[in-house]
Amino acid sequence: MLRVDLNCDMGEGFGVYRVGADAELMKYITSTNIACGFHAGDAATIRATVRLALEHGVAIGAHPGLPDLAGFGRREMSITPKEAYEMTVYQIGAVGAFASSEGGRLVHVKPHGALYNMAAKNKALAEAIAEAVYKVDPRLMLFGLSGSELVRAGDAIGLRTANEVFADRAYEADGSLSPRGAEGAVIHDPALAAEQALGMVKRGVVRTRQRSDFALKADTVCVHGDTPGAVAHAMRLREALETEGIAVRGAGERDD
Amino acid sequence: MLRVDLNCDMGEGFGVYRVGADAELMKYITSTNIACGFHAGDAATIRATVRLALEHGVAIGAHPGLPDLAGFGRREMSITPKEAYEMTVYQIGAVGAFASSEGGRLVHVKPHGALYNMAAKNKALAEAIAEAVYKVDPRLMLFGLSGSELVRAGDAIGLRTANEVFADRAYEADGSLSPRGAEGAVIHDPALAAEQALGMVKRGVVRTRQRSDFALKADTVCVHGDTPGAVAHAMRLREALETEGIAVRGAGERDD
Amino acid sequence: MLRVDLNCDMGEGFGVYRVGADAELMKYITSTNIACGFHAGDAATIRATVRLALEHGVAIGAHPGLPDLAGFGRREMSITPKEAYEMTVYQIGAVGAFASSEGGRLVHVKPHGALYNMAAKNKALAEAIAEAVYKVDPRLMLFGLSGSELVRAGDAIGLRTANEVFADRAYEADGSLSPRGAEGAVIHDPALAAEQALGMVKRGVVRTRQRSDFALKADTVCVHGDTPGAVAHAMRLREALETEGIAVRGAGERDD
Amino acid sequence: MLRVDLNCDMGEGFGVYRVGADAELMKYITSTNIACGFHAGDAATIRATVRLALEHGVAIGAHPGLPDLAGFGRREMSITPKEAYEMTVYQIGAVGAFASSEGGRLVHVKPHGALYNMAAKNKALAEAIAEAVYKVDPRLMLFGLSGSELVRAGDAIGLRTANEVFADRAYEADGSLSPRGAEGAVIHDPALAAEQALGMVKRGVVRTRQRSDFALKADTVCVHGDTPGAVAHAMRLREALETEGIAVRGAGERDD
Repeated sequence: MLRVDLNCDMGEGFGVYRVGADAELMKYITSTNIACGFHAGDAATIRATVRLALEHGVAIGAHPGLPDLAGFGRREMSITPKEAYEMTVYQIGAVGAFASSEGGRLVHVKPHGALYNMAAKNKALAEAIAEAVYKVDPRLMLFGLSGSELVRAGDAIGLRTANEVFADRAYEADGSLSPRGAEGAVIHDPALAAEQALGMVKRGVVRTRQRSDFALKADTVCVHGDTPGAVAHAMRLREALETEGIAVRGAGERDD
Repeated sequence: MLRVDLNCDMGEGFGVYRVGADAELMKYITSTNIACGFHAGDAATIRATVRLALEHGVAIGAHPGLPDLAGFGRREMSITPKEAYEMTVYQIGAVGAFASSEGGRLVHVKPHGALYNMAAKNKALAEAIAEAVYKVDPRLMLFGLSGSELVRAGDAIGLRTANEVFADRAYEADGSLSPRGAEGAVIHDPALAAEQALGMVKRGVVRTRQRSDFALKADTVCVHGDTPGAVAHAMRLREALETEGIAVRGAGERDD
Repeated sequence: MLRVDLNCDMGEGFGVYRVGADAELMKYITSTNIACGFHAGDAATIRATVRLALEHGVAIGAHPGLPDLAGFGRREMSITPKEAYEMTVYQIGAVGAFASSEGGRLVHVKPHGALYNMAAKNKALAEAIAEAVYKVDPRLMLFGLSGSELVRAGDAIGLRTANEVFADRAYEADGSLSPRGAEGAVIHDPALAAEQALGMVKRGVVRTRQRSDFALKADTVCVHGDTPGAVAHAMRLREALETEGIAVRGAGERDD
Repeated sequence: MLRVDLNCDMGEGFGVYRVGADAELMKYITSTNIACGFHAGDAATIRATVRLALEHGVAIGAHPGLPDLAGFGRREMSITPKEAYEMTVYQIGAVGAFASSEGGRLVHVKPHGALYNMAAKNKALAEAIAEAVYKVDPRLMLFGLSGSELVRAGDAIGLRTANEVFADRAYEADGSLSPRGAEGAVIHDPALAAEQALGMVKRGVVRTRQRSDFALKADTVCVHGDTPGAVAHAMRLREALETEGIAVRGAGERDD
């Protein structure tokens, strides 16, 4: 039986600031990536999000980002692999402590924003992040862009990894995500997004913007939480997958 | 055989900023309290300090503080017990992750600066901090001012606790530390400081500024790392204790 | 002819975070207090808010706060008068530069949150803040709680000052604001709020929670921007004032 | 008569952290670039540095940097020109307010670290920074790497500009600074550094690492404040210039 994970970035508020429809979206996903306080999130928000995840049986993940609250971790910074390693360890620890203190456990790690994008292409950064995850706890799972350096680095060091795909983002002929500025880069129609996800999960293939097919592995599908209609998108996506007989289940769940 | 722990606050740099003689002081202490990134410290500094501690067989502790880098965590803030709980969990997690990633383990927690002082007197804050430590890991030891609300809260929740005393600070008749501004509040002579420490460890008593005796428990002695002559002070103190046949050993060491 | 100013705290977003209905509220107020980047606000938000103010002919003010983004500047911190002075100068400068760069000028300064409250009662902090404003530019106007130490300090140093009153907050018999937790502390009914404002502006008196009358000066009325119905409240308040023949005009407007 | 300015980056501490020998170096320089609180510096440090500059008759400049205290503003970030504009306005304002409050005035602006380097090559960023300076106050002078995009952008918008050269850094054949990793990139011998400075000031030429000559304009020489022997370097450099009859005088001094 085919299975796939639905993951969503959450806990992205800070102090008095609130964003996202976390409580609603928790109903439809199986893994949550929780902001760790660098690009977003703070201790209170992490705790509240961990609790919400535990209530819904959603797998808890750390979502480490660049130290850039003003830029939401979306601006690339010329960090060294050593710095990537250290900021990843720190952030995993912070979220992991709340997983413990709330009676759960940390299941996976997915880098955020510019850190995610840089780690997809930059082998040295990818290896540093994978090593950080492994050194903190080798049982953690690493999420990365499908086919990226980050997934390769996780595999190489001996971590379980999840290849992430996007339902609502167009792909280029080389398998990279179409830049947001490009025509048709974002798929707004929930039906088309669900269809793209189904193709990736069932046949391991995505039709690119250049109308070629690109083969990729789809272990987990990213559900965006900060777009209009995010909840409707997530509901529709989960329904479409389950209707096709695909089990929607946390990628990082262990049977121990 | 009498035993006592010598602890020192370390890892208090940030970015390019360096303070303290951590590498030198590690030779003389048995427990280190590592700044967690809120009042001081950053990921690189935590990691380097954890490594140094492991090299010297010094017990690793988290030193959570208020989120006030500009004020070094020394300015009181009107935080709620909930906020105290959450900032403690977060910071323990960050340092704990480096203890794990470097092959060690976190042994104890000692709040810093204004958080330490507030938790000494404010029962609700003390309980929140003790609960945070307990919920992250009930095997952790909690360090607090000897006889304080914090130690009581740790005892009450079932944590191992260490009563901390100061060799180089004068005490008032009620057992509180003399305010820094007061005449004779800081003991600059290493011999006198060592003598005060010996009295506290051997006889459980300190001669106060008012020339009365105050009974207190001395499980761990604080060694200041940021004062002139800190290294000489630490060396002399350890020597004085060992000469008197007192075992200098980490308070939080478990025999498991 | 009676006149009064309507002021509102604005520019309280940060990075991707947005709060308040600034663009709507600008239509009804005459002075805006712009967050300066310490408790909220950032360079982009300050600039956008300054532009909005200039478009609406609203007087531009700096709204300096404590360095506590996580707590939105609402948590008291034990800062020294020197620190209050310095953080005020810094923040005035930041907002003032945008007033200049956008072709306007800075008109007034109103401290935020815990800094405002501390400066209302603590004479040394009040004097430090007033001196900071005066030293940056003696033509600036200082806004403070009506009858507070801050207004007195501003008067004493030679600044123009504005006594601020609240339409939607209950007052205690001693003229202080009722603590938010108290029964009836917040006036939710726009009609009652407008009535309280009218009484303060026209007769210089407020009926307290203890049903006594308290005399106060009302140069400017605070309009809250972050409450539900904020826009309706502001519209109603302005209408009520103008219907009574009261000129609604910026307190800090100079005739030069 | 030939003249040149000697400038130095200062005020680079933060909170309890202190760096640099600012008080000593003030004796030998004519312009100081004061960190503004983003990559380093805070309100107290800015004020102290402004005072020191006024005591020594040294011209006060703002030294805006990237919002990266952990990385000291040395890590490139993918900021937009709009962001560069806004962070420059903000930081100029903060330092300018202290110049005013201490009875002086802001004379120049020199970007820091990665912002300086990016603005040397990236025309859009250079134009944004130049526009920010101009919009805050068109009488300010802009310092940039000699011959860089930043100086060109300043000239184009109508600012007075100063071409900055380095006494103790080697140059490449194309006029760029040799990367720090390269053999001989840093000139440690004060005599050789002074000689290089003299050549640039007197003949407008520097001998490159490739042993070719490169023509450049030298309005101001950067004196490093954070290297061992910084004070000796500065003293020797000033002496060498004056011995050759070159007037050492602030580049941004106006005769009004």
